[in-house]
This record gives sequence, structure tokens and C-alpha cells, in this order.
Amino acid sequence: MSRYALGLDYGTNSVRALLVDVADGGELAVAVWNYEHGRNGVVLASDPDLARQHPADYVKGAELTIKQVLRAAAKANRKFRPEHVIGIGVDATGSTPLPVDSSGIPLALDRRFANEPAAMAWLWKDHTSSQEAIEITQHALAHRPQYLARCGGTYSSEWFFSKILHCKRKHPKVFQAAHTWVELADWLPAMLMETQSFDKLKIGACAAGHKAMFNPQWGGYPDAEFLAGLDRDLAAMRDRLATEAYPIGTALGGLSESWARRTGLPAGIPVSAGALDAHAGAVGAGIRPGMLVKIIGTSSCDIMVHPAGENLPDIPGLCGMVNASVLPGFWGLEAGQSAVGDIFNWFVNYVQPRGPKAGSHEALTAEAAKLAPGESGLLALDWNNGNRTVLVDQRLTGLLLGQTLYTTPAEIYRALVEATAFGALTIINRLEEYGVKVRQIVNCGGIAEKNPLVMQIYADVTGRVMKVSRSPQACALGSAIAGAVAAGKARGGYNSFAAAQKAMTGVKPVEYRSRPKAHKVYSDLYALYKKLHDCFGVKDCRESQFDVMKRLLDIRNAARNSK
Amino acid sequence: MSRYALGLDYGTNSVRALLVDVADGGELAVAVWNYEHGRNGVVLASDPDLARQHPADYVKGAELTIKQVLRAAAKANRKFRPEHVIGIGVDATGSTPLPVDSSGIPLALDRRFANEPAAMAWLWKDHTSSQEAIEITQHALAHRPQYLARCGGTYSSEWFFSKILHCKRKHPKVFQAAHTWVELADWLPAMLMETQSFDKLKIGACAAGHKAMFNPQWGGYPDAEFLAGLDRDLAAMRDRLATEAYPIGTALGGLSESWARRTGLPAGIPVSAGALDAHAGAVGAGIRPGMLVKIIGTSSCDIMVHPAGENLPDIPGLCGMVNASVLPGFWGLEAGQSAVGDIFNWFVNYVQPRGPKAGSHEALTAEAAKLAPGESGLLALDWNNGNRTVLVDQRLTGLLLGQTLYTTPAEIYRALVEATAFGALTIINRLEEYGVKVRQIVNCGGIAEKNPLVMQIYADVTGRVMKVSRSPQACALGSAIAGAVAAGKARGGYNSFAAAQKAMTGVKPVEYRSRPKAHKVYSDLYALYKKLHDCFGVKDCRESQFDVMKRLLDIRNAARNSK
Repeated sequence: MSRYALGLDYGTNSVRALLVDVADGGELAVAVWNYEHGRNGVVLASDPDLARQHPADYVKGAELTIKQVLRAAAKANRKFRPEHVIGIGVDATGSTPLPVDSSGIPLALDRRFANEPAAMAWLWKDHTSSQEAIEITQHALAHRPQYLARCGGTYSSEWFFSKILHCKRKHPKVFQAAHTWVELADWLPAMLMETQSFDKLKIGACAAGHKAMFNPQWGGYPDAEFLAGLDRDLAAMRDRLATEAYPIGTALGGLSESWARRTGLPAGIPVSAGALDAHAGAVGAGIRPGMLVKIIGTSSCDIMVHPAGENLPDIPGLCGMVNASVLPGFWGLEAGQSAVGDIFNWFVNYVQPRGPKAGSHEALTAEAAKLAPGESGLLALDWNNGNRTVLVDQRLTGLLLGQTLYTTPAEIYRALVEATAFGALTIINRLEEYGVKVRQIVNCGGIAEKNPLVMQIYADVTGRVMKVSRSPQACALGSAIAGAVAAGKARGGYNSFAAAQKAMTGVKPVEYRSRPKAHKVYSDLYALYKKLHDCFGVKDCRESQFDVMKRLLDIRNAARNSK
Repeated sequence: MSRYALGLDYGTNSVRALLVDVADGGELAVAVWNYEHGRNGVVLASDPDLARQHPADYVKGAELTIKQVLRAAAKANRKFRPEHVIGIGVDATGSTPLPVDSSGIPLALDRRFANEPAAMAWLWKDHTSSQEAIEITQHALAHRPQYLARCGGTYSSEWFFSKILHCKRKHPKVFQAAHTWVELADWLPAMLMETQSFDKLKIGACAAGHKAMFNPQWGGYPDAEFLAGLDRDLAAMRDRLATEAYPIGTALGGLSESWARRTGLPAGIPVSAGALDAHAGAVGAGIRPGMLVKIIGTSSCDIMVHPAGENLPDIPGLCGMVNASVLPGFWGLEAGQSAVGDIFNWFVNYVQPRGPKAGSHEALTAEAAKLAPGESGLLALDWNNGNRTVLVDQRLTGLLLGQTLYTTPAEIYRALVEATAFGALTIINRLEEYGVKVRQIVNCGGIAEKNPLVMQIYADVTGRVMKVSRSPQACALGSAIAGAVAAGKARGGYNSFAAAQKAMTGVKPVEYRSRPKAHKVYSDLYALYKKLHDCFGVKDCRESQFDVMKRLLDIRNAARNSK
């Protein structure tokens, strides 16, 4: 009799439920539901830095997709019964913290805060908190440099404490009403288990370690004195935060009776500790030492693991180096690009070019594929949403250079793709400079699946083979694997990730190899990209020639404020 | 009884015939004909630098528009008779040289060279000759620095000898078949007069002075030794070139019998020496000392005059400082931007954005008008077609900086408009730095006429009042004025431009004043523009950080050649 594990994957625009065969990772059924709030699930405002999600979408999304995936499973296999599901894993975007009351009810569901974006979930790509990020970084540099050393030397505006501190400063009523704040990846398991008290909530090692400087070495979250130096209420909140964090595969508890009734799943099946989506994706792609897993979606996350016993220097500019954040027994290394697919989507959806043979992603890709590397004379920076690695600076913006009077949309589209490839190469180079050798690269996500041109450009730019994860939904698969490990061998699952991944993951037969001639041209172009990258990306640029991007943001903000 | 003068204005995409009342400049009738060859009158090729025109369009265009304007005049005023037309003036784009046989027949009309772009007219914006421009510049720097001092220190790829030399090198059959080369502005009067021999053709002072280093001080065109240093055949051709050049208003001869028959105009009426379109436009806008006339079209030409008797230093980066090129008795100063309307057209026609409320120029302008200065966070360089003043470098390209994931087409459109305004300010500053005070600014051309947003942005960026020429077709009016002066007072015209301009030119009642708040923001933005301008525009940039644009062009050309 087959056993199945359920992975729930909360993305930027939708939630996905995936049911896989524990024996071989075969996908029995999948269900996807698009969030119904905001624009494609993202609540926006006149402030272009603001990006929120409504927690009601999380609850409704779980119920709908689980019910639907069970129905689909029954259709796909007449022998399937919900009782064959042995465990659940959950992953989500992050850092996406939300303010909750003492029993974990999101403040956004409180009538007092209806339509108040500050009471919703602060989506990973929300950049309202850049001032607070600078403040936290400076405070840590002065008082706790060790906190920064393992998160790239800079605390990001995308992260947990930046957002909470910004809420305290700008939306004190919401802050005061919140009992505590929880990462979405940790709130979701608690939701499924109907955890009653959110004091000292059991959380995953992943989001806390990568986004909130959580480290068992110093007793969990940053100490109270440090937090008090930022804001006394932040220090007070620390008493209610978790003190221990668990790797995925740890069963935090069982599915609640009520959720079992609502969905049709068996009550009590183990719910794994949650993880960030990319980290789950890395597991679903079969991550092991020497393998770089690139999860390419709206943004990219680049994940590697490194044996916990081996020496690992601090790598500047990485988003994080956290023990057990991907797999137990390994350092989890996270890097990434703040926007990849989002840049292509911006061009297609916001600019909406309709020039010769432009329009859709497909049309632009087809035209762009006809161009030779370097032929357009264009060069772009992939910073429309800032730079996550290696500059760790959200106050950077896009750049396109080389336009003539005849530049076509397809040429621009290809330049944007190339820019993201150059950004990817910059990350690989940084890892290797610090001794983390990249021996193979496995790509996951819709773009890796559907766009051979992007993969070929990545191969040509990096001079490396691009493989693609066998599963088109590696994140959900990774969560399902976590569910299978949480269930354990006794229940029909696995006792180790090594065994689970060996059985349940793999790559596609097709792979993209670097073409020497193209690689040569791209090496020349990369030298130019690196020049622009280093010039415009210089951190302390007030005195430099290259403060152009940041001065523009200052002028923009002043213009908006005086309107 | 009213007297009329005819102005023929040969633009990039069309030819225009304008009939004006000599008494007050009132426009009796106008006729426009769009060239029928190429794309909107411009013959293109896979080489994006190539831009040619077919001379057949010039002949057909004259006949059709003159016939049409006479018909329209008769309709507009029943008393009008063709015999009331007392003189003709002609202007054209330039440098637009064409190869001809000994009697002036364009080689493009020779069957041997049908469809051979090298045998057509080399349109001003043709940039195939950048290597030759560098060569001529270096040769002049070494041997005749005085030649360069009055044309901005650099000989442009857009100009006469660059194009002829490129033809010699790359299309020797065409070059060998050519008896001589003529600027379009000089070929057209000869066409109307049916000049039989093109040896020592009588030419205008304007194109020769600004585009071909013609100067009476050194005996006309560059000397034979200098030309022989570039190419011996070029020196040989010099024997057939003009030795004297005439200001507009000089009657070079009379309209031929055959053209009189073909058009209905009286035979023998005086035809003025030709001029470049912008210089004619300056006359039509009422140019006098202290007045900057901006002719804003696909590109811009900025014209001033300075009394010939007063001291005038060499101004680096100006396109030219030529005696009598605009008005007799004055230095004519020419500056300009290689693309203005062409940049907006590129965005609308090539990118074709259809994002929120985008589409046409009108829709984009309406949306862009809602934005405050600085609000978009965008900054652009106006170099999609190179930089004519003050950098004099065609090997520069466009740049857009500051994009986010939410940047809209209207924001980009406004940034492109602002970029051209910053370019305009850079020219004004250069003139004033060298003692040529800009006391008023009069704008001409379709954009000045139809786009109040562009004019307001120009006012806000420059901190000056923008006036608009009363005539919407200042170039054709300027040519008509030249026709009236060529006719002279005895025939019902004028004996001086001062008298003619006083009677026949003026500005519109509406004018655009700089708003202090907007000007303040734009001053900050201009400082950033100037930074990018100076960094990326640095001339000898091989060793600098800022060779990005030129290295990209090298890579582009290599990619195209190896395809």
C-alpha cells in the first residue's frame, strides 16, 4: 500500500498543496489557489515600497487546496484514501512576519484593523523598513558584530526586526495591539495544529536563523539588552518569543481535529517544523554538499549546504549561514537575487511592450532567442528590487544602458535576462572565493521549467552546466519530504533526509551546457556588468561619484512627501 | 497687391512648401508630402548606423508640393496668382551629402546603382562613418588644428567628409562613379535652377561652413594637402568643389523654364542660396543677438548669432561657428542634440508600451503631466543617438537608471523628456561659460507647438522662460524670408533680413515660465545628470571606469560581424 506526504507551499501569489508518493516522490495530485486580496495576492499602496498579504488568504488557501488535492488524488488513483497521508510539511515566503494576538489570531482579522496594511503580513518584498534596517545594522556593528557576521554583514529591510521596528515607529497602535510577531513559515504549522498559546511558540530553525539572527549559540534571538538599545518594547516582546528552534522533519505536533474535519485529512498526523520556501525547494531538488540549488521565481534564492563539522568562514554579503536551516547536520547557506522573474514581469506587465513581435513572455523569449550574445549593445543591472547578494542593499535600482533609436523590446528583454544571469554568477563567484566549491547547479521553479532560453543564457554566462530539478514544484516536494521525515520510518516515512531525498528527488534528463563562443562574449560583458555593479553598488557612496541611485531615491521621497 | 515668397523645407520624413505674405509673414498656404522611399522616408539596413534617403523623393517632392501649395493658395485667396510669388528659398537637413555626376544627376538615379544605399543621400543621422570621423579629427589635430577650433574640436561622423571618405573606403565603385558630392541644401537650388555644370557649384555658406570646414579665411574647403593626407582622391575631388559660398538671401539664379512649366511658378524668379533647416528656422523665429532659437524635432538644433565684428572665442563642443551661416554680418553658432523627438518616438514606436494609460504620445504625456519632478526616481541620458553637443561623440548610447518593479511607461516617458531638457541646459551653460549670453529662448517645431508639458519641463529645468515661435513652420518661413530678401525691395521683397524679420516673424502670446519649486528639484536632478554625463561621456575612456558604452559597442559590432 502506498503512503503519501503532503507539502503546502505558500508563495507570493498563490498557495499550492502537493501530494507525493513517499516511495519515489511521484506526484499524485496538486492543487493551487490564487490569493484573493490585493493585486495578485499582494496588497499594494501609493508607497511603492509597501507589499503586504492578507492572512485570511492563508487560512482559506489551506482549506481549499487540501480539500482539492484530496479530491484530485482520489480521482488520480482509485485506491487512494486520505488515511494514506502520513505527514505534512509547510513552507512559505519570508521574511514575512505578521502581528498576532496571544492565541495567534492575526491582527488583520481584528475588525479594528480591517484594511490596515500594517496589521497584515509584511511580505518578504516589502521595503518600507529600510531606515530601520540601517539602524539595526549600525547598532549591531557597534555592539554585536557577531550577529551580523553570519548574515552577510548587513541586516536587511526585508527582515523580521526591521519590519517590526518600523511598525512600532510608524504604526504604534498596531504594534501595541500585537501580543507577538510570527514568521509565516512558523505561523502556518501552528495554525494547522491549532496551537493555543503563542508564548514561546515552537518554531523552525530556518526563518528565525536567516531572518531574525536566531542562534542557539547566543540563546536564540538577539539578547534583550541589544533589542532594548533599538526599542524597549522590542526587548519586552522578546520574552514572548521562542527560545528553541527546530530543523524541518521535526514533528512539532499533530493536525488538529478541527482542521482534520475541515479538510478530510486524518487528525493527528505529524506536522513538520516550517521552513522558508527556497530552503524547502533545495531539499526537494536533492540538495547535498557541492550542489547549488537555485530556486528561480519572482526573486531567486540560492541555497547550499556545508557539513556542520567543517570549517566555514563568514562569507560577506550572503543572506545567512544558519545551522540546520536546510538539513539537520549541515550549515544552510542562503544567497539570492531580490528580483528575477519580477524584472521580466515588470517589463511585460508594467511597460507592456507591443513593439515588433513583443507582448507576452513567450513572444519576447522567441525573439530574444534569435539574438547573439552582445548583439544588442545593451547591458542592464538586475536591481529593480534592490540587491540581496552580495551588496545587501535595497536602496539600489535598475539600470539599462546602451539604447539606440532602434532598440527593440526583445533586445531589452534579453538584456534583463542576461542581467539576472550576471547577478547569479556574482553569487557563485562569492561562494567560491570563500571556499564553498560549486560542483553542480540544479535549478527549480517555473522559469527553469519553461524557459530554455533563460537556462541557456545562465549556462553561457556562468560557463557551467545548468540542470533542472525533476519536480516542477520543488518547494512543495521539499515540504512533503519534511512531512515524510516527520512521520518517521515507523509510520511509512523516513528517519533521515538522506534516505528520503535519495528516493524522492532527482533531476530532468535535459541539461544546458555552456557554449564556448557565447561564454567568451559573456565574459567580456560580465566584466562591464561588474564595473557598473561595483561603481553603483558601492556602499558608502555619499562622497563618491556613484551616489546617483541613492540621491535619486532621496529626491523621489522628498517629491512624494511634498506633493 | 500682395506679394508672396515660397519656402521649401526638406525634413527627415517629408518636404514642405510654404507660401507666405511678404508684408507680414502670414501663411497663405502650405503643402506637405511624405517621402515614399524607406521607412518614413529613411532607407535603413541591417546596420543600425545606416540612414539614407532616395533623391527621387527630393525631385518628386518639390514638384508635388509646389503644385499643391499653388492650388491651395488660389483656394485660400481668389486674388492670388502664381505671378505674385517673388522669390524662393530652400532649406534641408544636413549634413546630407549625395554623390552626383558632372551635371548634378544623383548616382542613385543611375541604373547601375539602383537600390545601392551608398549612391543615395547620406542622411544627417547616418552614423556609418564614425571611424572616418575619428581619422579626420586626428589628422586635423595633428596638421590643421585651426580647422577644428571652429567646429567644436571634433569632426563628426554625421558630416560631409566623414561620409565621403567612408564611401571611398567601403563603396569604391560608387565613389569612383561620382563626379562630385553636394550637400542637399546646395543641390536643391541647383535642381530648381537646372544648373548645368556642378564644377565649382555656387553653394550656401551654411552647410559648407558647419559641416565641411569651409572657411573663406583659408580659401574655402580644407586645402588639398590636408585632404591628400586622408585620401588622394579626396584631394582630387576638391578641384571640382566650390571656392565661394554665399549667405542666404543671395540670389544664386532664377527658376528654370522647365521647373516653371512643371510647377506653374513664374520662370526666372530668384532662388536663394540654400541653408540647413535649423538655420532657416532660426531666421523664421526672428533670431537676433542674445536670442537662442531651439528647433526641436527628431533632433534639436540650437542656433545663436553673434555680431561678426565682436570677439568670439572658440567654444569647445559646439557644432560650428561660421560667418554668415545664419544671417549675413553675424557669426552663426550651432549646437544641438542628436535626438530629442526621436527618443520619444523610439519609446512610442519601438517599445510600444501599452502599460497603464500608455500608448500614444498624447496618452503618455497626459499621464506624465500628473507626476511631480523627481517623483519617479528615474534619470535618463539623452544619448540614444549619440551626443552632438557638448561631447561631440556618436559612440555614446542611452541610459535609464532608477527603475523599480513598479516603474510605469509614463514615468519612463517623462524621464526621457527630462533627459532632453537636461541636455538642452548643458548647451545653454556651455554658451554662457564662453560669454555668449542667452537672454531669451524661442522654440520652434512640432514638439514646441503641441506639447506644453515638454515646454514646461524645459522651463522648469533651465529656470528660464520658454517662448514659442509664432509660425508653426519656422524653417519653411525662414526659407521664404530668404526668398523675399533674394527678390529684394525692388521686386516687392526686402533688402535686409532685419527688415524682413521685423515684418514677417514673431512669437506666440503663450509662454512657459519656470516654477521655483520644480526648478529646485530639477537643479538637484541636473547635478546627478551632469555626473552621469561627465562620467560616461569622458572622451578618452579606454583606461577609465567609464568605458562601458564604447566597450559595449565594440562587443556589439564583433557579435554582428561574427554572426
